[in-house]
Formats: sequence, C-alpha cells, structure tokens
Amino acid sequence: MAPPTPASRRSFLRSVGAAGGAGVLYSAMGALGLAPVPDARADAYRAPRPGDFAPGRTGGKKVLVLGAGMAGLATAYELGKAGYDCRILEAKDRPGGRNWTVRGGTRLTDLDGRTQTASFSRGQYLNAGPARLPQSHVTLDYCRELGVELQVFANQNANAYIHHENSPALAGKPVRWRTAKADVFGYVSELLAKATDQGALDARLTGQDKERLISFLQGFGAIKGKAEGYAYTGSDRRGYSVEPGAGPDSGTVLGPVPSLSDVVASGVGQRFAFELGYDQAMMMFQPVGGMDAIPNALADAVGRNRITYGAKALEIKDLADGAEVTYRDATGRTRTRRADFVVAAVPPMVAARLRHNLGAAVASALRSAVPVPVGKIGLEYRSRWWETDEHIYGGITATDTDLATIWYPSYGYQGRRGTLVGYYHFGADALAYSALPHSQRLARALGRGVRIHGEKYRDELDHSFSVAWHRTPDIEAGWVGWPSPAASEYALLNRPAGHVYFAGDWLSHVIAWQHGALTSARKVVTEIHERVLAA
Amino acid sequence: MAPPTPASRRSFLRSVGAAGGAGVLYSAMGALGLAPVPDARADAYRAPRPGDFAPGRTGGKKVLVLGAGMAGLATAYELGKAGYDCRILEAKDRPGGRNWTVRGGTRLTDLDGRTQTASFSRGQYLNAGPARLPQSHVTLDYCRELGVELQVFANQNANAYIHHENSPALAGKPVRWRTAKADVFGYVSELLAKATDQGALDARLTGQDKERLISFLQGFGAIKGKAEGYAYTGSDRRGYSVEPGAGPDSGTVLGPVPSLSDVVASGVGQRFAFELGYDQAMMMFQPVGGMDAIPNALADAVGRNRITYGAKALEIKDLADGAEVTYRDATGRTRTRRADFVVAAVPPMVAARLRHNLGAAVASALRSAVPVPVGKIGLEYRSRWWETDEHIYGGITATDTDLATIWYPSYGYQGRRGTLVGYYHFGADALAYSALPHSQRLARALGRGVRIHGEKYRDELDHSFSVAWHRTPDIEAGWVGWPSPAASEYALLNRPAGHVYFAGDWLSHVIAWQHGALTSARKVVTEIHERVLAA
Repeated sequence: MAPPTPASRRSFLRSVGAAGGAGVLYSAMGALGLAPVPDARADAYRAPRPGDFAPGRTGGKKVLVLGAGMAGLATAYELGKAGYDCRILEAKDRPGGRNWTVRGGTRLTDLDGRTQTASFSRGQYLNAGPARLPQSHVTLDYCRELGVELQVFANQNANAYIHHENSPALAGKPVRWRTAKADVFGYVSELLAKATDQGALDARLTGQDKERLISFLQGFGAIKGKAEGYAYTGSDRRGYSVEPGAGPDSGTVLGPVPSLSDVVASGVGQRFAFELGYDQAMMMFQPVGGMDAIPNALADAVGRNRITYGAKALEIKDLADGAEVTYRDATGRTRTRRADFVVAAVPPMVAARLRHNLGAAVASALRSAVPVPVGKIGLEYRSRWWETDEHIYGGITATDTDLATIWYPSYGYQGRRGTLVGYYHFGADALAYSALPHSQRLARALGRGVRIHGEKYRDELDHSFSVAWHRTPDIEAGWVGWPSPAASEYALLNRPAGHVYFAGDWLSHVIAWQHGALTSARKVVTEIHERVLAA
Repeated sequence: MAPPTPASRRSFLRSVGAAGGAGVLYSAMGALGLAPVPDARADAYRAPRPGDFAPGRTGGKKVLVLGAGMAGLATAYELGKAGYDCRILEAKDRPGGRNWTVRGGTRLTDLDGRTQTASFSRGQYLNAGPARLPQSHVTLDYCRELGVELQVFANQNANAYIHHENSPALAGKPVRWRTAKADVFGYVSELLAKATDQGALDARLTGQDKERLISFLQGFGAIKGKAEGYAYTGSDRRGYSVEPGAGPDSGTVLGPVPSLSDVVASGVGQRFAFELGYDQAMMMFQPVGGMDAIPNALADAVGRNRITYGAKALEIKDLADGAEVTYRDATGRTRTRRADFVVAAVPPMVAARLRHNLGAAVASALRSAVPVPVGKIGLEYRSRWWETDEHIYGGITATDTDLATIWYPSYGYQGRRGTLVGYYHFGADALAYSALPHSQRLARALGRGVRIHGEKYRDELDHSFSVAWHRTPDIEAGWVGWPSPAASEYALLNRPAGHVYFAGDWLSHVIAWQHGALTSARKVVTEIHERVLAA
C-alpha cells in the first residue's frame, strides 16, 4: 500500500535499527548500475523442495499459520512446495489482508460498527490497500510464478496536477506537473548556469566541468544562451493552451511564465522527489482486474481447503515439541489446533492482544509497534471526464489539502465509466476523515476535488466507498512504524519464540509494501526448513 | 513515428515558417496550466454532418483520395460522415502507410529489391512506424471514437540504461536512468545550494527565495545540510545492489558514487530533456495488439470496398469543375477516375513524381521537402531476460552508438517471449544500416547490444525484421523536413491547387506524428466542406 511520500517511508525505515545483511558480497558489483539487483535477491532465497529431505524422510511437518494476508499465504505456499502440512486460520472471510479489492457488493463493517456496502458497477473496482508494484519487488516474481497478468500502474503523469491551493504564488490554482517541471528546471538551470559562468563555483568545478555543466543546463532547462544571461523564459515543455496542428496552427504555448520568486514560493518543486524514489519511479505495475488477483492465486495454490475463514485466534502456546493455537471458529465455537510450528502472520497490534506464553519481552515488543492511520476513498464516475476534458490518462494529482492525493485509474482507459481514488492520506488527515461517517467523508472529499476539477467532480459521481485501515477489524492500521532510535523489538520479533515465528511487512525493511510481507515469509520459511532439516 | 529526440523534432518544426493560428483567443486562459487544452482543440474541429446541407441537397460530392495512410483514411472517414462519396487509391496492399505493424508472415521488398518475410511468433509484433501516442494528440480521440483499445506505452523507465560507451568517465559501462538522475540531480543541487548560500545569486534571489530554494534542493537532490556543505554523497534513489528485505536485510545501496567531474563528463544528464518534451512525457499509449488497429478500424469505418489497393497514381489533372487521377491498377491496367475533388495524401516525394497540371510552384514546393532516413529493427527473443534478469519492464535504453535506442516491449509482460526494438535511429545511422542486407544489419545491432546486455542478447534471439523507411516503396522517408528559414512551400501546399488538396503530417506543425496527419486531414475536410456548402 505504499506510504504517500518517500520522505515518510524513509523515516519509518530509519527507525528500524537492524544492521545490513549480506550486502558486502554484492556491493563490489554495484558500481555504475551494473549490479545484478534481481540475481542478488533471487540467489538469496531458495524455496524448500521435497528433495531437500534425507532419503526416507518427508516434509510432513505441521505448520499452523495465523493470517491469510500476503505473509501468511506466502509462508504456506512456500512450505507447501516441500510437502509441509500447512493450515491457515484467517479471521476474515477472505484471503489477502490489506491486499483488498473492493467491488460492487463488497461489505465493510468498521471497528465502530458502521457498515458500507459498495455499489460499484461491474468492472469497476478500488484497490483499497496496495495498488502499485515496483519492478524490483519480489511481488512481480510471484505474479509470474502464479500466472497473474500485469498491466502498467500510472504512478506519474505530466498532465496530472499539483494543487497547492494554499500557495498565494499560485493564486490557489492547480498547475500540471509538466508545467511545474518546466518552470522549476528552467529557473534552476538559469541560476546554476549564471553562478557557474560567474565563477562562483570555481572551487568545485574545473574549466571543462563548467563548460559541460552549462551545456547540460541549457538542454535540461531550455534556457537562453550566455548573451541573454541564461534566462529561463518558458518553453513548449510547459504545455500548450492551443494544441499545434496542421497548416498555420503552430499552437500556443501555455503562458505567462510565473516569476522565479513565485515558482520557488509555490513549493511545486517539493513534489519532484516522489518519482525519484527507489520504489516509486516508473515503470510500475498492477494485476489486471484488481490487486487481489495475487492473494486469490496464492490461496488457490495453497489449497482453499487449507484455509479456515472466520477463525479468530485467542491464544498461542509454545510447547516443548511444538505449539498450539486456540481460536473461535465462524460458528462461535472455541477450538484448539496443534502443530510443529506456528507462524503468526498478523499485525503486531493484533498479535499483542492474544494470550500467549512467549514471555514479557515479546509482549512488550509487540506493543511497541506504532500503527499508522491510513484512509482511501473510491469515487466511481459516470464518465471519464479527466480523460476526455483534461487529457489525464492515469497518474496522480498531489494536493496540499487533507486529500493528499487524487489518483486517476490505470485501467479501463476510454471506457464509459471510471473510478478515481479521491484521497489516499495518512496520519492526521486519515484520523480526521475516519471520524466521520462515509457520507461526510465523501462530501468533504468532493468539496476539495471540485476546487481542482470543477463541478463535474460532484455532478458526475455515481458510487463511492471509503476505507479507514486503522478502523478495520483484524488489521487496525495502514502499516506500522517502530520506535526510534534502534528497534531492539524488531530484532527480537524477527527471532522465533520457541516454535512460534512472526512474519509480516512489519518485520522487514520494506514496510507498507507486499515485498516486505513476502520477503518476511521467505525468511521464516527458510528458518523453519533449516531447523527441520537440521533436526 | 516520432523522431528520436525532442531536439531534432524541434529543429524540424523551427524550419516551418508558418505563423500561429487562432491561439490568441485561448492564450489568456492558459496561465498556470489551467487552459482547457483539449477543449480548445476540440472546439476547433467540427466533423461535417448531413444536416449541414440545405434542405433538398445532399453531400454526394465525389472525393478521390490518394493514399490510405492516416491522412487519407481520416479524410475519407470524416467526409463520409456527411455523405460525401469518397474513394481511396492506395499503392500498397494494405491501409496505414507508415502506421505498420509487422507480424509473422509480413513481407517487405525494399526499393533495391531486397525482400524480408517476418517470422515472428504468434502474438509477437513490431510497430515499424509510429509506436507511441501522447495524451494530448487527437489520435487518442480517434481511438475512442473507433473503439480501439489502449494500453500504456512505456516511454520512460528508471531501470533502463543510458549507455555512453564512448565516455571514459563511465568506463564504457551502462548506467540505469535512476542512477544517472540521482547523481546529476544530486550534484546540481549541491552546486546550486552552495552558490545560493554563498550569496553568489543575491542579485536574483531575495532572502526568502534563497531559503525556499535551498529547502527544495535538499529534497530534490537528497543532499546533506549546510554544515556538510550541502554535499551530495549518494542515496537509495541510485538503486540497490542488494534489494532490501526482511529481518536484518536492509539492502545495499548501489555504489560507489562517481565524482562530480565524472558525472558531468559522462553526459548522462543530456538525456533528461527527452522525457520533459511536450509529446514525449509520460503517460503515453499504444493500441492493444499493434498500432495498425487504428488504420484497420478507420478502413472498416470508411468501407473496405471504397479502398482500391495496388493502385499506383500516375497523374493528377485539375479540371474546370473537378479533377481526375490516372493510375495503374493491381493488374497493370491504366485507368482514370474523375471526382469533384482530389486529396493527395501521399508523401511529398511521391507526389513530386506524379505528372500534373498544378503549376511549377507546386512542383517545386513538393520537391523542396527533405526526406529523413529512419530505421528500426525488431528482435524477437525466446525469453524475456530483460524482465527476469534485469528488472526492466518496458522503457527505452539510450545509447551513444549507431543504435540510438533500444526499446523493451510494452506488451506481453512476463510472457514467454518478447520483441525488442533493437535500434530506432535516423539520419546517418539509418543510412549506414540500410545500405546493408538484413543479416548484416542484424549482426551489427547484436554486436552493439551485447555490450549492454551481455551474450544473451545474441544467444536468446529467435527472429528479426528490419525496416528502412527511406528505402520503402511509396513512402521513401521516415518523415520530411522543410527548408529553412521560412517555408513558403509549406504555405503553398497547404492551399488547394484548383480542386486538388494535399494532406499529411508533412503539412502540419506535428511532423512525424499521426496527430499531424489527422489534423491535416481535418483541415482539408473542413475546407472542402465549406467550399461545397458555399457553392
């Protein structure tokens, strides 16, 4: 589900104190982009196989997994490859956890008892949780292995807007990303070319550096030459107010160009780091038809009969030669299951409330994870006015309002209907919206959106559905952070407590991404398998 | 088909001397990206309708179109909407012109007599001509109107490479776009922050500007703070040599960071203007299954029986009350057809060779267009190693070799096979390759590609097919340029010669794009219709 900004993501990760792993081996290969990024990772994991066992022995050990989210599913799937007897207990009535695609008929009852039923049209959906897959994430490898078809997720669009409505420099008006980039890069180039030419950077630049740098800046900023002071005065990169065409129609470049002071004051440039982020840079992908194609394929591969839905875990007990779980089943009956190993692949807040005999340090570590409030709303429109009227095909508008972002759909281009993400926000914004019933969340989101897109933003709306992950039963957060400065809790929970293991994105360096959940599962799978083989 | 670089595109357009059109009306609305770009253009064109004619009159005028390329097809399609009786004569055996998708079985005989037959596997194809559609182009509106399904064209990929093999600073090694951007933006930010902080730009920046600019640069460049001289020392935006994962695996950021001098000398930054270009910035699109879905849909809409294939025009004669065309049909017979109007929607080099009575000025103007050599090769591989081994899903690698660029396919992600564009080049590079037979073009392209991707670039190859547009009969160029400084020829050919009109991207300000051909068709359609209505 990926946090809204790389900055916030980094700060979560910074607070994870664990030291680097096997990196040294590969770092020498990494110079100048040549490192075999995928191979390095692929080498690091090897799925258990039946042939790993000594002759005459089998992989029939019993593993009980709590949670059919991505970590739980991947644990059962990977161990199942070597013949482990895996069962999953899942509190909800579906697999996937936060990987959840909302369609017509989908119901959600919040922790506070409020219920929504989605009325989206056939073919329309909202990926309420994770929505984008970077090229380097192991999630794509699972898609390949499981036959989940991919399409591009448009994480970046020059025609989408930056809307800093609180910026006097922009007079409250949205500006397209392409225009913002043209102006910021133009003025940055002008300033740096001037300073370089005037010798202000002679301590850092040789004569040849200066010449090459200025040549780069002239192309990058589309600025004038030395005789005109390297001035930025606009270019067709800003866009056109009248599109060029045939005959005399040479087009009219968008103008006027705002002043250097206004561009700097507008803050639009602060947005650009987003798409440079390691896990946000294009290209990005999504499964065709909804993100839940991945957990659905995993659940099929695990075996649907191995997953018990509506099973609320109550207690985990580590035993001398295994572990057992007590849970309440869908009929309300309390049951106990025993296994050689238990993998608790549930959020730490949920795990923290289970009775257990895993010790005070584990209990305290589980309680130390900090849940992050996250909200998302899906808005289904009767027309795709953002495509027909504004030439925005996918991508994200960034705002300085409590919406945070608006996402245009990356599927169904030029179709009759389409479903936007009307907000994807976290922290205080998510708390403010989630305190309201859905109708008021909607009204507030529409009021903000109208200021960007006009009245059609309200008039063309047909259906909507909102999720507040921190108010969603059995999940209770968009993701978690760990306390600074160094999270000894993270290290502790990454070790088994007797026969009990924990797994989830929260135990990875890639929190809030499915990659984190999947690599955590692989780590636990490897540890269990090695333990079994060593026994 | 879009020229390789915005710079080259601009230079072609700069040499078109025609003055701006109706732009003034809209330019006042254009401030700060608010201009209704699409509406402005949409307003400018209104398709002819049967109801436009006075009661009792019909649109039954005869229009003969030469060429079933995009301009010719759109002319017949648009006029057909109002009941004009349109016929198209096409020299080839298919519609589309340069919009041409090569699949298994496709044959091409060059002007020099060399023949290739494509042996691509089922589902694999090469868009030999145009391959990408910008969001603002009218081409997308035709896709919507004709029901041509779209998918994303990946014009930009942070995981693709920049390969300046002639740069000593890079030791001949490819660098990923993301790494190049991190380093260039990092050093640019460091330099500009230093200069700003030291007061070198005080003539241009207020105190508040300076503070805001430095704050922007810190995020944009991921640089250190003032105490550390705003130094750029690398960041995870460069990528990882070991991917972050679970437990202790915090990942290893790609290193080492090259020096400022080496980054500037490498010239990688010169590539960045490409994706800022008005018509190259993401998002971009392609029809599902091949670009020729558009001409095929247009041909169906025009009526397949209205298009005569294998018809080579020989002569155009303007008459007192119409015009006639003499052509040789597929059986070799010479025929003459008469119409109220003739629209010559063929390349100017082809038109220049027709006999005609349109005057010496027209003849000379047609001969003044400068054909641009353009080449492309499709390489079908038995595996999608660029995805599995290098995590490149679509996008373009830029090289300083005679390949110019390598394109990774934007369809069939994670499938078994895939087809790259092994080169897309023009000018001298295109001439050098087109002088060779296909097998030698292929060998040369593979030799270059191996230096980027290793031996698999040769070993995994299965099929290939190359096109040299300047050697392709009835087309004879990738596109054309006009002589500088001011092309009176362009203006002349944009006016009718009696009852004869010319149409094509070469008569637009958007040369080398289908949008140019389509808007040219619309212009001619509007002129003919107004003339008929006024009569």
